[in-house]
Amino acid sequence: MDTPITIDLYSDTVTKPTPEMRRYMCEAEVGDEQLGEDPTVHRLQGMVAQLLGKEAALYLPSGTMCNQAAYAVHCQPGDEILMDKTAHPLHFEGGGPTPLKGILVRPLEGERGVFSAQQLEEGLRKQDRYNPRSRLISVEQTANLGGGHCWQLETIREVCESAHQHGLATHMDGARLLNAVVATGIPAHEYARSFDSLWIDLSKGLGAPVGGVLAGSREFINEAWRYKQLFGGAMRQAGIIAAAGVYALEHHVERLAEDHQNAQRLAHGLAKLPRLFLNPEEVETNIVLFDVTETGLDAAQFVALVKQEAGIRFSAMGPMLVRAVTHLGITEQDIDKTIQAVGRLVRGKTLAYTGTTGSRTGAY
Amino acid sequence: MDTPITIDLYSDTVTKPTPEMRRYMCEAEVGDEQLGEDPTVHRLQGMVAQLLGKEAALYLPSGTMCNQAAYAVHCQPGDEILMDKTAHPLHFEGGGPTPLKGILVRPLEGERGVFSAQQLEEGLRKQDRYNPRSRLISVEQTANLGGGHCWQLETIREVCESAHQHGLATHMDGARLLNAVVATGIPAHEYARSFDSLWIDLSKGLGAPVGGVLAGSREFINEAWRYKQLFGGAMRQAGIIAAAGVYALEHHVERLAEDHQNAQRLAHGLAKLPRLFLNPEEVETNIVLFDVTETGLDAAQFVALVKQEAGIRFSAMGPMLVRAVTHLGITEQDIDKTIQAVGRLVRGKTLAYTGTTGSRTGAY
Amino acid sequence: MDTPITIDLYSDTVTKPTPEMRRYMCEAEVGDEQLGEDPTVHRLQGMVAQLLGKEAALYLPSGTMCNQAAYAVHCQPGDEILMDKTAHPLHFEGGGPTPLKGILVRPLEGERGVFSAQQLEEGLRKQDRYNPRSRLISVEQTANLGGGHCWQLETIREVCESAHQHGLATHMDGARLLNAVVATGIPAHEYARSFDSLWIDLSKGLGAPVGGVLAGSREFINEAWRYKQLFGGAMRQAGIIAAAGVYALEHHVERLAEDHQNAQRLAHGLAKLPRLFLNPEEVETNIVLFDVTETGLDAAQFVALVKQEAGIRFSAMGPMLVRAVTHLGITEQDIDKTIQAVGRLVRGKTLAYTGTTGSRTGAY
Amino acid sequence: MDTPITIDLYSDTVTKPTPEMRRYMCEAEVGDEQLGEDPTVHRLQGMVAQLLGKEAALYLPSGTMCNQAAYAVHCQPGDEILMDKTAHPLHFEGGGPTPLKGILVRPLEGERGVFSAQQLEEGLRKQDRYNPRSRLISVEQTANLGGGHCWQLETIREVCESAHQHGLATHMDGARLLNAVVATGIPAHEYARSFDSLWIDLSKGLGAPVGGVLAGSREFINEAWRYKQLFGGAMRQAGIIAAAGVYALEHHVERLAEDHQNAQRLAHGLAKLPRLFLNPEEVETNIVLFDVTETGLDAAQFVALVKQEAGIRFSAMGPMLVRAVTHLGITEQDIDKTIQAVGRLVRGKTLAYTGTTGSRTGAY
Repeated sequence: MDTPITIDLYSDTVTKPTPEMRRYMCEAEVGDEQLGEDPTVHRLQGMVAQLLGKEAALYLPSGTMCNQAAYAVHCQPGDEILMDKTAHPLHFEGGGPTPLKGILVRPLEGERGVFSAQQLEEGLRKQDRYNPRSRLISVEQTANLGGGHCWQLETIREVCESAHQHGLATHMDGARLLNAVVATGIPAHEYARSFDSLWIDLSKGLGAPVGGVLAGSREFINEAWRYKQLFGGAMRQAGIIAAAGVYALEHHVERLAEDHQNAQRLAHGLAKLPRLFLNPEEVETNIVLFDVTETGLDAAQFVALVKQEAGIRFSAMGPMLVRAVTHLGITEQDIDKTIQAVGRLVRGKTLAYTGTTGSRTGAY
Repeated sequence: MDTPITIDLYSDTVTKPTPEMRRYMCEAEVGDEQLGEDPTVHRLQGMVAQLLGKEAALYLPSGTMCNQAAYAVHCQPGDEILMDKTAHPLHFEGGGPTPLKGILVRPLEGERGVFSAQQLEEGLRKQDRYNPRSRLISVEQTANLGGGHCWQLETIREVCESAHQHGLATHMDGARLLNAVVATGIPAHEYARSFDSLWIDLSKGLGAPVGGVLAGSREFINEAWRYKQLFGGAMRQAGIIAAAGVYALEHHVERLAEDHQNAQRLAHGLAKLPRLFLNPEEVETNIVLFDVTETGLDAAQFVALVKQEAGIRFSAMGPMLVRAVTHLGITEQDIDKTIQAVGRLVRGKTLAYTGTTGSRTGAY
Repeated sequence: MDTPITIDLYSDTVTKPTPEMRRYMCEAEVGDEQLGEDPTVHRLQGMVAQLLGKEAALYLPSGTMCNQAAYAVHCQPGDEILMDKTAHPLHFEGGGPTPLKGILVRPLEGERGVFSAQQLEEGLRKQDRYNPRSRLISVEQTANLGGGHCWQLETIREVCESAHQHGLATHMDGARLLNAVVATGIPAHEYARSFDSLWIDLSKGLGAPVGGVLAGSREFINEAWRYKQLFGGAMRQAGIIAAAGVYALEHHVERLAEDHQNAQRLAHGLAKLPRLFLNPEEVETNIVLFDVTETGLDAAQFVALVKQEAGIRFSAMGPMLVRAVTHLGITEQDIDKTIQAVGRLVRGKTLAYTGTTGSRTGAY
Repeated sequence: MDTPITIDLYSDTVTKPTPEMRRYMCEAEVGDEQLGEDPTVHRLQGMVAQLLGKEAALYLPSGTMCNQAAYAVHCQPGDEILMDKTAHPLHFEGGGPTPLKGILVRPLEGERGVFSAQQLEEGLRKQDRYNPRSRLISVEQTANLGGGHCWQLETIREVCESAHQHGLATHMDGARLLNAVVATGIPAHEYARSFDSLWIDLSKGLGAPVGGVLAGSREFINEAWRYKQLFGGAMRQAGIIAAAGVYALEHHVERLAEDHQNAQRLAHGLAKLPRLFLNPEEVETNIVLFDVTETGLDAAQFVALVKQEAGIRFSAMGPMLVRAVTHLGITEQDIDKTIQAVGRLVRGKTLAYTGTTGSRTGAY
């Protein structure tokens, strides 16, 4: 029998709208957004454009569509995007720009999801008839598979300056940009300045149920609208769900700090346990990655065991790497219970898991 | 100054959620739909699969994505889809399957949006190295640019039988299938039987704010999921908006009959006016098309004039063709006011419109 | 048993290199053309650039690749090319720009392969989020399915001026441009002036075995090189076959006049026969189209019968339309024999063909 | 002033047709190959099908088109091809399957161009909604950037067996397969047995000017014909150039052994020189790679210097890696002269090159 999940550290995508957010959605003023007549969608787009210091913004049903629409606007078939080898579009978006528009993606060997200007330059293609055209860089803030690691402002500036000098455009996948903002105190528009396009996700730490908002120049957003339409992302009375984004931006940004504290607490707790390996100093935001090699289980088995035995859900992010993500549905007590439960398991003589392990889902 | 719109016959896409529907959405049980954990999305998908007599169904953010995901599953690059020359994907979906997957679309010369088995057969390509591969037919029920004209069951059977005999798959764009169901009394699953895939829209006459539901075999839906992910249509706590669909299917289907009565009333009223041409017998569902040639204005000017002078919004569907669509936001009194207001205008000595006319938007 | 073909009017693609041309090829100086080191390829490209009054030219293995490389340079996915409904790429190139790059093709209702500036303008898409982008016109000189009909210089100018005014690029498929040049006395560069890109075929009336040459600005040709490489059209010691093109341009252009005279002779001869319909005044170059409806056979059957009974090969270009093409392998005597043989057949009491008919191949 | 090249070790693509080959081409019997009427093309295709033990074969204008047509037949958009990180399509084909059909390419970390079954299995994608579909492996025999290294028959069998077990198709880029055949004595059909498709190049060591021949099942070749047409690779009297392939297969295969001896001679000669690093035991066929780090020049500078000072052309295959390729235009004396000339240069006190270095071209 399946143990019910009582503490869900799978991802911050599992956050459910709070009662207040639901009420706000329920009362949202709406219109047909394809006709440009939804006032709540307008309001959300205006808020995000301002937050990121860009001319215009566009509400889309997912962060994946934010990435794909931006890639499609910046690139043509045979162009190449450079991104870190751990970046989300390389692993969780179905091949994204390649089937959608014949665009290549070149993985760079960054560190914890962050690559340098030098690595970018080494990854540029010679310009001749035989090579794809290097056209865009894509930076993921924070780096999910890098354990929520923040791109430093200085690195961003160097990388983007180099990209622009070589004629490439720059894009930020800001799925968790606001986590970086809260963790470092650097305003979002400072991070955004070097980028031709970027987006924030509403359905992760912010706790809204649906959507992301893509921002850039007015001309860029006009072109992105074409892809919103083409991909089937143009909705109707989207104000209902956009309202959750408005509410989240007004009420749920500052509280990300609690998630970061909980992640710290969890990291320090797990680090003291035997058989688990992690460095709490590398936990900068709301993601905790730890290695389970010494438990004798692989990551998928470990995750399945903890779920079965304790009703706690982690996710497997690599053969031996387990991830926990804190969010607004997780309290300090949940963290303490988690440390205790995991502690009991890893202190046991031998760990064994004999059931089947679920396949890894696209844990953004 | 813009006259506020008091009667909006632009499209049934402008319907806003009712207070009851909002309350239902607000209280919906939700989960992460990408993880298969949203109970309301599951419920909606189950309801539609049953309604259409198919094994499985998939909630998507728009009808356009329903079409595009289905086309992408059925076709490969260089394949060709046959559809009526007035069909939605040819006019309102940004070229849809062509930029998305290198698929050709061949327009057939049907009548009021409906083509025959013979026309289909004449449109098939010879199978050789020089020709694209005829691979799929796409039928739009009801035919929007055909004035809400219903495909008869017999025609559907003949056309689909012919398609299958020639090795083509069959797809229905059922954006307004439920209008045909209510108008003819034929159950949805009867219409659906001949089709390998089909979908219904929740955000038109049904009055839900967002989404459509695509149905087919389990295998088809598994493949469609890949495109939902690829196009960026995979959401998170989508139960909030899916709940509106559940509510609509339970409460808003039968009432489509009122929309049809209102369309009849409007058609007969307009037909009696001078300078407008239409045949009320061709009004089968909730769409009324009329010709404005004799007003001395073109369709865009006529639409602009009526909006400015009377606060009533129609849409221009061709150089001289104006469309009115009835829906749950339109009452019998609205219809009578509309007939009166239009009557006043067309009985005037000369009609003139000197403002700019908005460009036609994709009035589905 | 198959009757051997003694008179082959199937297409001017069947021309075989003459002994002199073979000798010239055999002695050609060659190098690696991918490295830019083949002097004969250089010479051919220079000759064509000069002939067409363009900055640069590129040798490609076929006319189809000339079209596809040009389309790919001018257009992006979701762009649309406008061409006559009878144009070659719509019928003989496997869907060409659609599977290759997600480009749409809009057929215009021209007359005998020639459309007007007004038809072009009516075919332009409204510029909004819902429509593909009108991006290029493609003109076929002479119009193959129009019976070798020549685009007049005046029509070309009007159509191209209109295209350029609306921001579209202009391309000529000059597969038989030199036939038009010889027929009208207008120099090739005059026809070429209005076009951003165009090409001539070496393997039709000119009698070379392989290839076409695409011309345009230096920048255009640089981009076309990328597609030559991508499509696999970059060869090595291509000077061997390019030499045939050099020879043909020096020796086989003026003689196209003989083909036109033979076509005239054939047209007048066939027009006098019962049961065949054609207007000899519409025969402007080397193509003769005639209707076989009154023979009681369809085009494919008629073609098969003439081949079986008389060893003469025509091609079927439509359900009832048969095509004969004159070329350097056809003499005046061949024409007279053809008229006699066909005369014998159509004067017979009833025509019947009971064998199978080959499928129509892509008779360019 | 440019020093004329007297010894060209740039690539075996620079081979020019011999007088005998030219005479053979000049006398070739030809027809329209698109119509299936060129007897010399038929003969060539039959010879290659038999040589490789496959049902059918197809003549194409280049090896690049052989690869791209095969990839397009085997894969759909969003599918992934696995190949060694040094394989030709990743570096010299303009992004090939990605812009042409939305196909991904995953580079494997093989050794000298050869990957193992285990590496293949580690590179397979998990089958879910988030991942591209692993669909094909591509093996390059011999491995060009691996220094002409031969895939062993045993490795091929293991790798292909694993691929087939996981539902992947198998393809060999046999650009220099016949070099492996001659070097190892293993017949071509033995190497070919495990592959669903493969091709040999006629324009490398075999010395024909143009083309490659792709082989596979009859069904595969029928599908490949569609891409030959689509890419513009369908020619007309191609027998002229196909004849060179026939001649080469009859007269130029055994003599590849001389090229291998010359490569050995060159490798041993260069290995004795100071400042150059290579292991002659790794020279298995006609390619010699050596490292120039200790000369103080990079590869491009070294290549430019040798060309300027001695009229000998090598190619730069990496920052510090220089390549020499032997072929039918290179004699034993050329090798000795090359060793002497390079010896003089590298024994000099300091090497310096102050001119500009050409950019690396796609030295297949």
